[in-house]
Amino acid sequence: MDPRPSPGDETCSIARALSVLGHKWNLLLLREAFLGRTRYSEFQQIGVPSGTLGNRLDALVSAGLLEVRQYQMAGSRRRSEYVLTSSGREVLPVLIALGEWADANMPLPDGPSIVVRTASDHSPAHLAFIDSKGACVSQDALRLERGPGYKPALT
Amino acid sequence: MDPRPSPGDETCSIARALSVLGHKWNLLLLREAFLGRTRYSEFQQIGVPSGTLGNRLDALVSAGLLEVRQYQMAGSRRRSEYVLTSSGREVLPVLIALGEWADANMPLPDGPSIVVRTASDHSPAHLAFIDSKGACVSQDALRLERGPGYKPALT
Repeated sequence: MDPRPSPGDETCSIARALSVLGHKWNLLLLREAFLGRTRYSEFQQIGVPSGTLGNRLDALVSAGLLEVRQYQMAGSRRRSEYVLTSSGREVLPVLIALGEWADANMPLPDGPSIVVRTASDHSPAHLAFIDSKGACVSQDALRLERGPGYKPALT
Repeated sequence: MDPRPSPGDETCSIARALSVLGHKWNLLLLREAFLGRTRYSEFQQIGVPSGTLGNRLDALVSAGLLEVRQYQMAGSRRRSEYVLTSSGREVLPVLIALGEWADANMPLPDGPSIVVRTASDHSPAHLAFIDSKGACVSQDALRLERGPGYKPALT
């Protein structure tokens, strides 16, 4: 199981997020959850090494990103399914930011592996920075600054 | 040094991005570069373990996220500084997505460690999903879908 953020990670939001989201299989399992998979046998199909899948799902449940629900098909025993929590659903911008960066900077020959679309008209959507009035702002017009929780040394 | 993405990672943009951006120190060094640090001695101040900093900077240069420039102060020897490339500058949405997720889901008592603001009027900016016309779309109105490069099994 993943540890909760260690004391040394508490000084930076990025380090804290990476303590959960920096694991490849964690993010790929969340990707599959967004694509509609919920069952252990479905998650197995993405190639998680045997012996790793249970630990990764437990870690995502422990971190509050997935929750376990029970389901039962006629004539079968009860089984668990894994469903995104509200905290898990908020990971979508992280997934898309990573995917958009890779598609721009190390593209695949076949094109993107995931795309995000509006449910209404199925047109592509993208991540953008918006200002306090909701207008898009180009990145060149933005500055990263230290916030009130910033500490220069992390350890 | 970080390896370039391994063959097993080539099937998913998220896995490929994490091969570079999933390392805590890589992202934290990029965060410091966005905050204006360029010099080895400046990066040392964030608490990167000794023996790790040089490797991490080399990895970021090798991955094309930082580039090395030479500078020389009067009376001193030439030194290297590390400056974001265009590929490195495109990591900003990843940093902000991770930071916004952590600030919402595992907040610090003092508030965010980093904030992004418009250069023009210094007001806060945020990440949002926009549709093809540039209008903001709530996440509930979006669907993640498989793209042309999607492959179900990653290994």
